[in-house]
Amino acid sequence: MQLLERAKELEAEGRKIIHMEIGEPDFSTPTSIIDAAKMALDSGDLFYTPSTGNPALQQALSNWYKDEYNVDVSPERILITPGTSGAFSLIYAALLEAGESILLPDPGYPCQRNFIRLAGAEPINIPVGPDTRYHLSAELVKQHWKTGTRAAVVINPSNPTGTLIDADELQHIAQTCRKSGGYLISDEIYHGLTYGIKARCALEFDEHAIVVNGFSKRWAMTGWRVGWIIVPEELIDACRRVMQNIFIAAPTLSQYAAIAALKEQETCEAMRTAYDERRQYLLAELAKLGFDIVVQPQGAFYIYANVENITDDSKVFCWDILEKTGVAITPGEDFGQFQSDRHVRFSYATSLENIREGIQRLKNTVGDCR
Amino acid sequence: MQLLERAKELEAEGRKIIHMEIGEPDFSTPTSIIDAAKMALDSGDLFYTPSTGNPALQQALSNWYKDEYNVDVSPERILITPGTSGAFSLIYAALLEAGESILLPDPGYPCQRNFIRLAGAEPINIPVGPDTRYHLSAELVKQHWKTGTRAAVVINPSNPTGTLIDADELQHIAQTCRKSGGYLISDEIYHGLTYGIKARCALEFDEHAIVVNGFSKRWAMTGWRVGWIIVPEELIDACRRVMQNIFIAAPTLSQYAAIAALKEQETCEAMRTAYDERRQYLLAELAKLGFDIVVQPQGAFYIYANVENITDDSKVFCWDILEKTGVAITPGEDFGQFQSDRHVRFSYATSLENIREGIQRLKNTVGDCR
Repeated sequence: MQLLERAKELEAEGRKIIHMEIGEPDFSTPTSIIDAAKMALDSGDLFYTPSTGNPALQQALSNWYKDEYNVDVSPERILITPGTSGAFSLIYAALLEAGESILLPDPGYPCQRNFIRLAGAEPINIPVGPDTRYHLSAELVKQHWKTGTRAAVVINPSNPTGTLIDADELQHIAQTCRKSGGYLISDEIYHGLTYGIKARCALEFDEHAIVVNGFSKRWAMTGWRVGWIIVPEELIDACRRVMQNIFIAAPTLSQYAAIAALKEQETCEAMRTAYDERRQYLLAELAKLGFDIVVQPQGAFYIYANVENITDDSKVFCWDILEKTGVAITPGEDFGQFQSDRHVRFSYATSLENIREGIQRLKNTVGDCR
Repeated sequence: MQLLERAKELEAEGRKIIHMEIGEPDFSTPTSIIDAAKMALDSGDLFYTPSTGNPALQQALSNWYKDEYNVDVSPERILITPGTSGAFSLIYAALLEAGESILLPDPGYPCQRNFIRLAGAEPINIPVGPDTRYHLSAELVKQHWKTGTRAAVVINPSNPTGTLIDADELQHIAQTCRKSGGYLISDEIYHGLTYGIKARCALEFDEHAIVVNGFSKRWAMTGWRVGWIIVPEELIDACRRVMQNIFIAAPTLSQYAAIAALKEQETCEAMRTAYDERRQYLLAELAKLGFDIVVQPQGAFYIYANVENITDDSKVFCWDILEKTGVAITPGEDFGQFQSDRHVRFSYATSLENIREGIQRLKNTVGDCR
């Protein structure tokens, strides 16, 4: 985050920064979604929706789960939230008592830990590496589950590694969580952004899984702040109570736009194809520069690279190349502690042209930063 | 809340319900604001804003504080939130450690207590009555402040009573909070909806006051989910960290619309005038029916009535008149515990025509409910 601020400072000073540190699509929201928002503006109905969301959006998502994953999810179980941030604050506030705990992969999405701490509970960070494709495994879940553990989180595809979890392993984790009397929480925000493989929804394996997703990434709708969480029946009431208190409801206009988003296909596919092209280019070029990408990323827009061959401190390295080359990438420490000094994350949520320029700049400089 | 659900059930069965229980403007968002949102949609820039908000909105609000209250507030101190709900979760998460406490008026806005509990802290509910216009006083603040108390909250105009706090008292409370080493938190969401008097901003008396406000009420923008909180310098960093984690940012489009809202005057004044007309009608008619309105409400769109002359249980009374007359009002218990069984809240955020019909229905029935 400090590095992002420094990058912006340099930009303000007139330097061209290549942003490969940012987790936000560089594409504008598809036109069909914009048009739907304009129609909703004309309707004049911008009042609160029910706290659990616009019923039409809940129904549209229910249909979408049938089409997309062939799973039956009743609309009542789909709670509309202000982005996935809202979904996570909600579920942890509804699920956790002080002193309880949640199992998380390290490296992983850093905000998770803060949401859990805000709920007075303990994030248990479990080191994960290439052997499990940087995901939790059923074995790891079994090993770390303790009294008061309420759930294990899978981020699939992973942020920061872009790797998908093996379908069998996901199923085993779900079973392990059920047997332990807790939940699997599956963060599926990068579904739809996978390359040559389709990500599996946790609900395909476990109807009691908690699934978090949103419109920010696949549909390029970050600033709209709309996401959703699917919870099992027994959690609906607790979640509704929390929602009434902490959000009131997700933005009304964004919810209308989201209904249109679910019908959007062509532009989403074009964005996905563009990401894939960048991914392939970047994988090839980074390897040439000595970045070690141990497990091929098949999703999201991230590449997690081992930099042991280049530097012994990834943080110093990231600051160094920002200052020297104007290329911004994220040090491993932003995603956890496990071997974080040996890793960096590249985001390819920027144009291929920018990425090419970034690689060119790195070529001239990586040697000096070693 | 259960009463609201029952009202909706009755409506679904085909009964016409007069909604005087709802805290949401019945007016649509002014056209000038809708038009600004359409322009923003055409710009294609619906990416995240900084977590503290669109700098142009922060600046516009800074100017607005100068014009509206003649106070200087630097844009950096104005943090844009997803509604006032977002503002309260933010400030309590940033300010409170487990075991600390906040002083609140009882009756008051019920979500406050839940936000504070979510932060692991204790809401201290202080009974307030007609003698202090249903507000905290400096004396009460002094009396209830204890080790670990971090702030006292004033809701001005008050929900549920619609009463304004005396300006001198507000100043004394601010001084008392400062002397005690804590903050005054002033909830000003109903500013701009006052009748024959202007509400004073806490910052006029104390530049260290924390002020919460938003676009939902005065500008009829509930579903847009955009509000703000003004914090003293020393809290900005803590708040920014919480914001990055719990919201990412308020909805981008709504922030553009909010900039336009600050220029809107004519439609806001027309809405205010309509509320005032309803207020005057309702005050006169309720008095005739035996409702005792001890302190004249001068703000918001609420009337808080003592019903001792009519019933000895306001909750039973509210359920009874809903079933018998189809008029929905809110029992005192939704706002606290202090004498809540003797009070009800009427909202006049519904058309004068509806209110007239509601009064007509009550006239025929209130006797039977005694």
